[in-house]
Amino acid sequence: MSTGATVWLTGLPSAGKTTIATALAEELREEGRRVEVLDGDEIREFLSAGLGFSREDRHTNVQRIGFVAELLASHGVLVLVPVIAPYADSREAVRKRHQQQGTGYVEVHVATPVDVCSVRDVKGLYAKQAAGELTGLTGVDDPYEVPEDPDLRIETQGRTVQQSAAAVRALLVERGLAGDAPAATGPRPTAISEPSRRGGGEARERGQAGDAPAATGPRPTAISEPSRRGGGEARERGTA
Amino acid sequence: MSTGATVWLTGLPSAGKTTIATALAEELREEGRRVEVLDGDEIREFLSAGLGFSREDRHTNVQRIGFVAELLASHGVLVLVPVIAPYADSREAVRKRHQQQGTGYVEVHVATPVDVCSVRDVKGLYAKQAAGELTGLTGVDDPYEVPEDPDLRIETQGRTVQQSAAAVRALLVERGLAGDAPAATGPRPTAISEPSRRGGGEARERGQAGDAPAATGPRPTAISEPSRRGGGEARERGTA
Repeated sequence: MSTGATVWLTGLPSAGKTTIATALAEELREEGRRVEVLDGDEIREFLSAGLGFSREDRHTNVQRIGFVAELLASHGVLVLVPVIAPYADSREAVRKRHQQQGTGYVEVHVATPVDVCSVRDVKGLYAKQAAGELTGLTGVDDPYEVPEDPDLRIETQGRTVQQSAAAVRALLVERGLAGDAPAATGPRPTAISEPSRRGGGEARERGQAGDAPAATGPRPTAISEPSRRGGGEARERGTA
Repeated sequence: MSTGATVWLTGLPSAGKTTIATALAEELREEGRRVEVLDGDEIREFLSAGLGFSREDRHTNVQRIGFVAELLASHGVLVLVPVIAPYADSREAVRKRHQQQGTGYVEVHVATPVDVCSVRDVKGLYAKQAAGELTGLTGVDDPYEVPEDPDLRIETQGRTVQQSAAAVRALLVERGLAGDAPAATGPRPTAISEPSRRGGGEARERGQAGDAPAATGPRPTAISEPSRRGGGEARERGTA
């Protein structure tokens, strides 16, 4: 069975967490991998209705998402969680729970500086905060505890989304959590030459993601795509 | 990929929901199927801390469990939910959500009468209620809306746990949600004769559950095992 894992992308609002998660998810899904992006209002609607943005409520929200992520990951799903998670102890509790259950977990700090985030301002939160229409914005007038020792720190400025996604993927490969070494899924035919990552469109069977050449090591970063492909699709979660 | 589904076992406290779910889960896991039993205090601890037992809170709890079940089922997991879920509209909302997402859902009413449940009284809830130490016990002094049209209704009296579990499995097979027709996974060797359901102990790869003869139709009910195998293991969830 495929090895599931949780990849928590923590960072400020508009840091690019969801954009990176979405790009990576799309790529892995096309390779037949089971992927879930735990993002969006749905989670809050179902799991955390009634919670606000106090430290305690943010902690509870993060624990709930972490619980669901671990459950999914334990069943072989690669779970991408682009959720702010501003408090170190909250993140640590989620990591510990995964460790206790023997489920893979990596923390990725999407380390876009606040001045860059506030210019992107995908959801208009920084503008609202500046206009006094909103308080408690993480990184501005609410704490964000920068991860001291994340599994990966991504500087998104000057990198394409695809490059950032590739960096996360390279970490997963390194940890044996994605695009495993060929030996893990059996010898693969060497005659297959560079199948198109986008091509086919047919989801291949889970567990075969390791067969894709792209998965066997860091990918070339020469792929040039627009810096924020479909920038309008970037959604930020300001609700952690 | 395997077809996931949610099987909600609704019924009174001590009706046998968890016992049946556990037996079926064990059997399917041994066949390599991904199975999750969403039961126990963990769910309440993580997802529904702070909720009580009012109609509204019970509804919210059921919706949260339903949300998580659907997520898991959408990734090919067979999710067994032995949770009271006393209100018809709560159950209906969970079913609708599954239908909207195109995820399999079946409702099983574990229809053990209250007088039988109160004798079993696995968690001592009926005794406590009778002694005035507890109020709001579903089916006694709190409502239980009997499912009018469940996908399956099980009368547990006079049946072994294995027979009840087999009835649920037969329903899943009928719906194509478990032990699929051989054609679905390719021709299977016909020389394999009646592998032991218990034997092997090696979890086979997901997606091969359909290869087990037992999975291709209703199983013989002649298997005689103790009526409540490991009765002491039966846990009831009085927390829906």
